[in-house]
Amino acid sequence: MAVISLLTDFGLEDEYVGVMKGVILSIDPEARMVDITHGVAPQNLIQGAYTLAAAYPFFPPGTIHTAVVDPGVGTDRGILAAAAGGHTFLVPDNGLLSVVMDRVRPERIIRVTESRYFLKTISRTFHGRDIFAPVAAHLSTGLPLTDLGPAVAAGAVNRLDPPTPVRRENGELVGHILTADRFGNLMTDVDAAVLAGTDLRLAVAGRTLHGLSDSYAAVPPGHPLLILGSRGYLEISINGGNARRELELEPGQEILFQTRQRSCD
Amino acid sequence: MAVISLLTDFGLEDEYVGVMKGVILSIDPEARMVDITHGVAPQNLIQGAYTLAAAYPFFPPGTIHTAVVDPGVGTDRGILAAAAGGHTFLVPDNGLLSVVMDRVRPERIIRVTESRYFLKTISRTFHGRDIFAPVAAHLSTGLPLTDLGPAVAAGAVNRLDPPTPVRRENGELVGHILTADRFGNLMTDVDAAVLAGTDLRLAVAGRTLHGLSDSYAAVPPGHPLLILGSRGYLEISINGGNARRELELEPGQEILFQTRQRSCD
Amino acid sequence: MAVISLLTDFGLEDEYVGVMKGVILSIDPEARMVDITHGVAPQNLIQGAYTLAAAYPFFPPGTIHTAVVDPGVGTDRGILAAAAGGHTFLVPDNGLLSVVMDRVRPERIIRVTESRYFLKTISRTFHGRDIFAPVAAHLSTGLPLTDLGPAVAAGAVNRLDPPTPVRRENGELVGHILTADRFGNLMTDVDAAVLAGTDLRLAVAGRTLHGLSDSYAAVPPGHPLLILGSRGYLEISINGGNARRELELEPGQEILFQTRQRSCD
Repeated sequence: MAVISLLTDFGLEDEYVGVMKGVILSIDPEARMVDITHGVAPQNLIQGAYTLAAAYPFFPPGTIHTAVVDPGVGTDRGILAAAAGGHTFLVPDNGLLSVVMDRVRPERIIRVTESRYFLKTISRTFHGRDIFAPVAAHLSTGLPLTDLGPAVAAGAVNRLDPPTPVRRENGELVGHILTADRFGNLMTDVDAAVLAGTDLRLAVAGRTLHGLSDSYAAVPPGHPLLILGSRGYLEISINGGNARRELELEPGQEILFQTRQRSCD
Repeated sequence: MAVISLLTDFGLEDEYVGVMKGVILSIDPEARMVDITHGVAPQNLIQGAYTLAAAYPFFPPGTIHTAVVDPGVGTDRGILAAAAGGHTFLVPDNGLLSVVMDRVRPERIIRVTESRYFLKTISRTFHGRDIFAPVAAHLSTGLPLTDLGPAVAAGAVNRLDPPTPVRRENGELVGHILTADRFGNLMTDVDAAVLAGTDLRLAVAGRTLHGLSDSYAAVPPGHPLLILGSRGYLEISINGGNARRELELEPGQEILFQTRQRSCD
Repeated sequence: MAVISLLTDFGLEDEYVGVMKGVILSIDPEARMVDITHGVAPQNLIQGAYTLAAAYPFFPPGTIHTAVVDPGVGTDRGILAAAAGGHTFLVPDNGLLSVVMDRVRPERIIRVTESRYFLKTISRTFHGRDIFAPVAAHLSTGLPLTDLGPAVAAGAVNRLDPPTPVRRENGELVGHILTADRFGNLMTDVDAAVLAGTDLRLAVAGRTLHGLSDSYAAVPPGHPLLILGSRGYLEISINGGNARRELELEPGQEILFQTRQRSCD
């Protein structure tokens, strides 16, 4: 019995997520549903794509990850069902699967066209209810992926514009802030591989941060720090504070780190 | 095994919703619970009533819809359990069932009085925990509706003040904004029946919107549009934007549409 | 089959809570999970401790209450698993269990050290995912508490600084605002025992409130009132309004009540 995970930008203020679950239970009364989050900023594909990639590996193999951040709802944008890394993904074909695909090669990608698995009436604005939810429920009952429509080559899948990569110039490492979380922790695109062997310094708030902290509490309350976050990326945080707000840094901004290759002696 | 849906204005910041679920599982360990939403604005019966009516048809038949928007908690306002359209509704008798009752005639309405199905101690302020949750759980275990108390005639149920109906005057269609969602989409009371055969124009933000769009993306980013929303009502939206904020329109406001009956040639 | 309740300050904007659930289902596919709340203000141990104590008694006996408000994550602060009052609690050893322990004496407290029940890789910042979730899931599958590590004496558990107790001076009762809820209801530390036999008056907003109301609606809309809240404490509310905002009172503030011992004639 598969798990259905749900990730959307629908928020929880309206009935949208609850209605998706009602549709799922109408088709598969035994479905197990878990919300990854519905707090993706409206139509923020980058945040959605990174959140999906950060979350899926922690779910049981076979989970059907149903992700709906879908500014093109009602247009002829496609819908994809993909098997990758032992999981199934159901997403609009708008780049939402990009970060997952950067990390794991899909074994199979299907364009979802078989409308017999949709609700009978398809609205203009809510395919989460009318298409994604019923298709996820049918998959949960055991429907093979290939019954949903024709195969698609990985190269034909829409991807997000590749982000400006982390680069080194003039002894600086130029990274970017990708997202911020509820605590104001700022996740960058500097990952563990880039960090290895690098001696990192960052000047913020009139202070120079040097190297990674082992915990938030390794610096005094209110002080900023660098730390390897739970998603495997360098994060900028404030012990007991909100780095996003207090450092006035926002997703999308460039961050300049002073670097020195660590010598081996 | 029935589903219990929950719709309240309790929010998710406090323990209130979790405690209701703890009470339900204490009585029916097998209960399947789905949140419709807990984000109804505090004590906003109109929003609660429309949200309940929009959501319930997408749940499995037999679902016990437990809706608590209850400014009269602790007074002698009644509590109703109703069977309607194949679903069960458990609500305070304060109008919260109004929109459902506009659409489907209840087969049976019971005034919930049998306190043996309540918690032993009833607080002044949290009947969601002390009455609604345990009664929903008992219904979920198979308790017949009629065991909860005496029958009530539909005419004796409290209703919301009937909203000013949509009207036509001087070639204009006068509708209202009922609610706004997380995206700032503005739902009006102009439904598909009213729209049929009408050529609609709306002047907003120095622009004249003409007719219904097929999708948000049918207009350029940042442009407003009219669209038939997922609840079956005309909505005013902005492609990639927030119509509520950018057009400075709020629930409750009147909206004047220019109309021209479509000729049939 | 136990219930796992979850209480954190993680919010629902990010994937953190969903990922914890994915980890739990990976270990115990049959786990029943209920969110108490994830809306505790970031790192607010007092709010977390009172919320946990208010919620747990309404869950089925045997529930595994997994509470993570954890500013010391990544340091050597301990993690505790405690059996108390028929429930199991899994918490950082930072005071989060204080209010529960004020009310019920733990039968057994274990320091969680057996890392074979953790995820293989432990991050610096997200022990909710890496330790709390897998340990809760193992408990849910029937792992005895004592397998998690060595016993700890109740006296060795870290407690919150004891709050300034409610005191009487010069005919006044001096209490405090502990928390506020979504509705702006202000919960104080004045409980039913203190209230018994006391004739209470409170001057707020140019009005003198006298005694407890039976319901919010017992005063006219917009008027303040005193009421015994669902957690068993005196609350300051406004009928149909938001006392926190309108009275400009905040958690932490002292409240001076005029008192007169009720005479018995």
